Amino acid sequence: MTIDRILPTEEAGDLLDLTAEIADQELAPIAADHEARRAFPREAIRVLGRAGLLGLPYPEEYGGGGQPYEVYLQVLEILASRWLVAAEAVSVHTLSCYPVASVGTEQQRKLLPDMLGGELLGAYCLSEPQGGSDAGALTTRAVRDGDAYVVNGTKAWITHAHDADFFNIFARTGGPGPGGISCLLADANTPGIVPQAPERTMGLHASPISQIAFDGARVPADRLVGDEGTGFGIAMRALDSGRLGIAACAVGLAQAALDYAAGYAREREQFGTRLVDFQGVGFMLADMATQVAAARALTLAAARLRDHGRPYSTEAAKAKLFATDMAMRVTTDAVQVLGGYGYVADHPVERFMREAKVLQIVEGTNQIQRLVISRSLAKG
Amino acid sequence: MTIDRILPTEEAGDLLDLTAEIADQELAPIAADHEARRAFPREAIRVLGRAGLLGLPYPEEYGGGGQPYEVYLQVLEILASRWLVAAEAVSVHTLSCYPVASVGTEQQRKLLPDMLGGELLGAYCLSEPQGGSDAGALTTRAVRDGDAYVVNGTKAWITHAHDADFFNIFARTGGPGPGGISCLLADANTPGIVPQAPERTMGLHASPISQIAFDGARVPADRLVGDEGTGFGIAMRALDSGRLGIAACAVGLAQAALDYAAGYAREREQFGTRLVDFQGVGFMLADMATQVAAARALTLAAARLRDHGRPYSTEAAKAKLFATDMAMRVTTDAVQVLGGYGYVADHPVERFMREAKVLQIVEGTNQIQRLVISRSLAKG
Amino acid sequence: MTIDRILPTEEAGDLLDLTAEIADQELAPIAADHEARRAFPREAIRVLGRAGLLGLPYPEEYGGGGQPYEVYLQVLEILASRWLVAAEAVSVHTLSCYPVASVGTEQQRKLLPDMLGGELLGAYCLSEPQGGSDAGALTTRAVRDGDAYVVNGTKAWITHAHDADFFNIFARTGGPGPGGISCLLADANTPGIVPQAPERTMGLHASPISQIAFDGARVPADRLVGDEGTGFGIAMRALDSGRLGIAACAVGLAQAALDYAAGYAREREQFGTRLVDFQGVGFMLADMATQVAAARALTLAAARLRDHGRPYSTEAAKAKLFATDMAMRVTTDAVQVLGGYGYVADHPVERFMREAKVLQIVEGTNQIQRLVISRSLAKG
Amino acid sequence: MTIDRILPTEEAGDLLDLTAEIADQELAPIAADHEARRAFPREAIRVLGRAGLLGLPYPEEYGGGGQPYEVYLQVLEILASRWLVAAEAVSVHTLSCYPVASVGTEQQRKLLPDMLGGELLGAYCLSEPQGGSDAGALTTRAVRDGDAYVVNGTKAWITHAHDADFFNIFARTGGPGPGGISCLLADANTPGIVPQAPERTMGLHASPISQIAFDGARVPADRLVGDEGTGFGIAMRALDSGRLGIAACAVGLAQAALDYAAGYAREREQFGTRLVDFQGVGFMLADMATQVAAARALTLAAARLRDHGRPYSTEAAKAKLFATDMAMRVTTDAVQVLGGYGYVADHPVERFMREAKVLQIVEGTNQIQRLVISRSLAKG
Repeated sequence: MTIDRILPTEEAGDLLDLTAEIADQELAPIAADHEARRAFPREAIRVLGRAGLLGLPYPEEYGGGGQPYEVYLQVLEILASRWLVAAEAVSVHTLSCYPVASVGTEQQRKLLPDMLGGELLGAYCLSEPQGGSDAGALTTRAVRDGDAYVVNGTKAWITHAHDADFFNIFARTGGPGPGGISCLLADANTPGIVPQAPERTMGLHASPISQIAFDGARVPADRLVGDEGTGFGIAMRALDSGRLGIAACAVGLAQAALDYAAGYAREREQFGTRLVDFQGVGFMLADMATQVAAARALTLAAARLRDHGRPYSTEAAKAKLFATDMAMRVTTDAVQVLGGYGYVADHPVERFMREAKVLQIVEGTNQIQRLVISRSLAKG
Repeated sequence: MTIDRILPTEEAGDLLDLTAEIADQELAPIAADHEARRAFPREAIRVLGRAGLLGLPYPEEYGGGGQPYEVYLQVLEILASRWLVAAEAVSVHTLSCYPVASVGTEQQRKLLPDMLGGELLGAYCLSEPQGGSDAGALTTRAVRDGDAYVVNGTKAWITHAHDADFFNIFARTGGPGPGGISCLLADANTPGIVPQAPERTMGLHASPISQIAFDGARVPADRLVGDEGTGFGIAMRALDSGRLGIAACAVGLAQAALDYAAGYAREREQFGTRLVDFQGVGFMLADMATQVAAARALTLAAARLRDHGRPYSTEAAKAKLFATDMAMRVTTDAVQVLGGYGYVADHPVERFMREAKVLQIVEGTNQIQRLVISRSLAKG
Repeated sequence: MTIDRILPTEEAGDLLDLTAEIADQELAPIAADHEARRAFPREAIRVLGRAGLLGLPYPEEYGGGGQPYEVYLQVLEILASRWLVAAEAVSVHTLSCYPVASVGTEQQRKLLPDMLGGELLGAYCLSEPQGGSDAGALTTRAVRDGDAYVVNGTKAWITHAHDADFFNIFARTGGPGPGGISCLLADANTPGIVPQAPERTMGLHASPISQIAFDGARVPADRLVGDEGTGFGIAMRALDSGRLGIAACAVGLAQAALDYAAGYAREREQFGTRLVDFQGVGFMLADMATQVAAARALTLAAARLRDHGRPYSTEAAKAKLFATDMAMRVTTDAVQVLGGYGYVADHPVERFMREAKVLQIVEGTNQIQRLVISRSLAKG
Repeated sequence: MTIDRILPTEEAGDLLDLTAEIADQELAPIAADHEARRAFPREAIRVLGRAGLLGLPYPEEYGGGGQPYEVYLQVLEILASRWLVAAEAVSVHTLSCYPVASVGTEQQRKLLPDMLGGELLGAYCLSEPQGGSDAGALTTRAVRDGDAYVVNGTKAWITHAHDADFFNIFARTGGPGPGGISCLLADANTPGIVPQAPERTMGLHASPISQIAFDGARVPADRLVGDEGTGFGIAMRALDSGRLGIAACAVGLAQAALDYAAGYAREREQFGTRLVDFQGVGFMLADMATQVAAARALTLAAARLRDHGRPYSTEAAKAKLFATDMAMRVTTDAVQVLGGYGYVADHPVERFMREAKVLQIVEGTNQIQRLVISRSLAKG
């Protein structure tokens, strides 16, 4: 289904066309094989980087694309509609660039061109095995020792744990609670940073997620991003943006599922009639299409708030909540439209469904999003 | 809750502020009383007209506001958040002006300043008692007799049946099916146009809906709007726009319900804690807020398509479907937040719930919207 | 739709047939008129009493029917499918008889034949204006003064406030919290018991609900039901049973809505086809029928636990939650099946929808039911 | 969570206890490993057979258990709560025994003791690659040739394709449509019966599903089950029973997911509080528990109709529809309760979710169930 998009600039239209072209040529053809082999598509991500798709929302002076979030998110959506792993890689990478890009020192920002150009792939180390939704209670410690911070602890659920070139690490440099947390930028080859065995995830097989053990890893002191004790705030601001990214991923994934299911329903006949012409199927598809469109509109509306410098945290939470719950339903229904064929790997919809689930969980579970929104309502 | 809106022009912001001011001063204070007395607020509607709110999406040269639909719909939304009857009056009136404004003769368009200024209130006579969703099968006949069409038949579900100054009548001038239908513009005081007793509706008590009997009503031949046989097309195009209006009404109504429920939950304590601070209530409110925001975003996205001259019929159907189903759920949940107090007329939420239901039915039931959307998907 | 019921006894089948017969002859014909006039059908309730339908679950030795809850609830369901007001009257009355029947003195039980025979109609005075879901915090006081308790305070949401012959009053005789509450049985004509103006409820118009002011009402000390301080426990046990009653009411109401909508869909044609033969409508009806059947089964399963002397409190909460949420959805959809006709009082479905809402609120809001259930899960 | 069950006999209680014991000892410990190795647990199924669990609803004279469906389904439910593959094996096997048990010749019934005792495992060959929901249009042909039928064609989605000892084959012996279909019973080692490569299914990895090619397979003419042309009716009656089995599987699977999630929520703390004590989680669990209970009650109510010789086809469709849609939601929510941990194979909930999806598809998709139910409503 072609989406009729009203874009802020003509350039944005070109960018989306380019994205679709690259996604069709570089991502779609290799997705199934990489998923089956559980192989991360590092080369394809590099291609995205060279095309300028890995630093879109960051300033051009640092090698970014200077694009508004409204446009960046539609790039993400298109990528996700071809292969979620690629879109998620871009989203996580973009998140990982946020601390340096927003509060990094001049020295740190010298890394940005390589980061935003995709030569250096990032990972974002916030979650911990016991931490769950309570990020402010994290226990990984970073202790100043001469010209370095010595990091000890374990981070969990790290996308790109095995493939990243740099890690944003949120670690405790001070006392308990959010105020004791700082942000460090570590090179992946730092001794004492040890990615663990990949998690046996339900989906995203081509993008292994792992724990990372920090065992006395020394991160140079000049790699402190922002001031000591400001890490939690950085992490939360990054998450606000990251939630928009996940929402866009959900929209793209659901759109792919809808398109596939609708295509199948147009081809497949039962009782002498195309599936799509039975209201029982057609109305289901109509509800799916409506939900996808609503999620896209909500996500882009939140993005425009960000682009206009307005508060957008609550709206980002709404977009993440709505879009990912929607993607879960829509992908589940897409499998249903295909019936038995939907349940097997000959068609991609069973993969879409397995992938959708993770989106309800990452960057703050949807319960956390509801908490964010309800707190805003509690203030009135 | 203040909605942070990104508007296309500064003028639009002023217009929404003006709308809110008028709505607060002229509508909100009289709503409950008019509802109880089942009295149509003809005067208040006139005030809206004088403020320029009754012809917003039409060209300034005809006395309209020259506003894009994106802005017009937000005016509707604000009106609906104060009193659905007023918003629905504007929406129906705007619908009734559509045929003349879009395909009327020069002579007919001379009426537009009074129509768009609200001196003349319109009604839209398409539905029939037996017709339901099958508008193409309508049976009201208009037979040419000299310089007039003689209209016989019965129209049903007519908003403003008793209060309108003019009627758009869709009647059969030719053979069966959509191709035999024409559009006429009749003065309300035409002999033979006889509004019947008001329907005993569940809600919208201040805006009686009635059947109208056409008993040999003579409508001058120069009041044929568009060519003979083009009426069905006019009606369908008008409905596309009308659906956006209903979607906006649903958003405003649901926002009002959410705001009232959230306000109540902030005030009311149970077990020593504010209701809003129980996740059981807070999460429900968060879901309501998310749904309202999604419906608003979807509706405005569809409006922007219309404003940019793109096809928008399917997207309008999605907006109408999503927004009105949402309003039904959100208003029902708003009553729930208030508990027993929600069930009584001391608070407006029970009225909101009764009003929401009609929105799922008018301008094409939500089943018809699903049909429209599924047909678009069936084409691929 | 005839429901194929498997009943524990042949006698039960006769009882349900009798109930259906009475409901068809005495209730259905007068419902619409009484609703319009907001007139309580005291005579019809008396007829139910004389037929033995007002004391079904109580022992025959006290004039009850000696029926298991499984059977009693199906009687309630049948009554509710004809007129919710009648079923609710039976349910509330049955609730009001519970304290005396379960822990009353021999002297108090002498009233039972008249209570269970329906000569004396009961009301249940637990809720208070500020109390909401926190019944343990009630503030109505009963102070011992010689041979009487002097009651002061205000009760709210009292069904039969104006029509009851006796009141179960839960009042504070001791300190704060649940342990200070006692149960009293008062004659309605006791000086100082003053029903207030009826609430302007969204539905149940024929059964006015009102506050009752207790202004120094003297209730004889021998009308203390159970020991001082045991009132809260009595109230909670009564509510467990009452919740089953509300669940059964919801099932009956939803069944009536389904039957009406299905009947309409079988009669009404659109585009040359019966509505019911469009999958868009037929599948909606199928989902409604499935939900109704699930609610009935769940309710009766909980009832059988009660009948077998097993703990059933959590299961009663599930039944109340599920059945009433279901009834809200099903009645709302029933209106939708009728389209515009569903929105007007010519057909009963709009009334069903207005009635359904109250069931989600009474005998503990559905939020309280979720609390009850989640606490059981929290124990493991 | 212990389920408090009211059973028709004491023997039934013993049977359920035995089932739970065997399931705990023989199934639960091997499930994860077999799933990982995609190895069918033929031995464990044999153990179930020896314990009498493979022929429960069939007459004792043929080696069955003589149990009512109400009891058999609760056995299935308990098995499914330990390992869906085992329950599904029992359900499919039971289905495969149905034709011979219900209309087989005396000669054929001599196989029953081995079938019902589990020495011979069955498969049910109805679906075809192109057939989907339109079973009446199947194209596999069986042509009489001397003392045998020669079968050619392809069957699809066959559980036990590689492990079954006998196949029920529905093939066309006559003209087009349902009336030309017959049922044959074939030994698995018949030349020309060739199971294909296992499908790459999303779940049920330990129970490979495959196509079976019939390439001139000769099935002895005395293995015709029932008369020629009666196969479709046999298949449909078998499906009615099979649907109850799937519903019971869904209940057990969802119960397992609920129990696991609730257990996790009782253990896991966030922000210093157990997850289960946050209403945001507790209410979600409460809704899950309510849905599971409703599905169980509905399924058993339909079973009791069957046990009492009443028509139960529509109620079986409701049970299958409700229970499997419920299981999809509940397992998806169970993953959510565990957050990231729910998404990995260290916990079984991600497997539950992948398994649940197939239940919405088999034995008639849930769209077919809605069709069955809506047709019943269309008759009135």
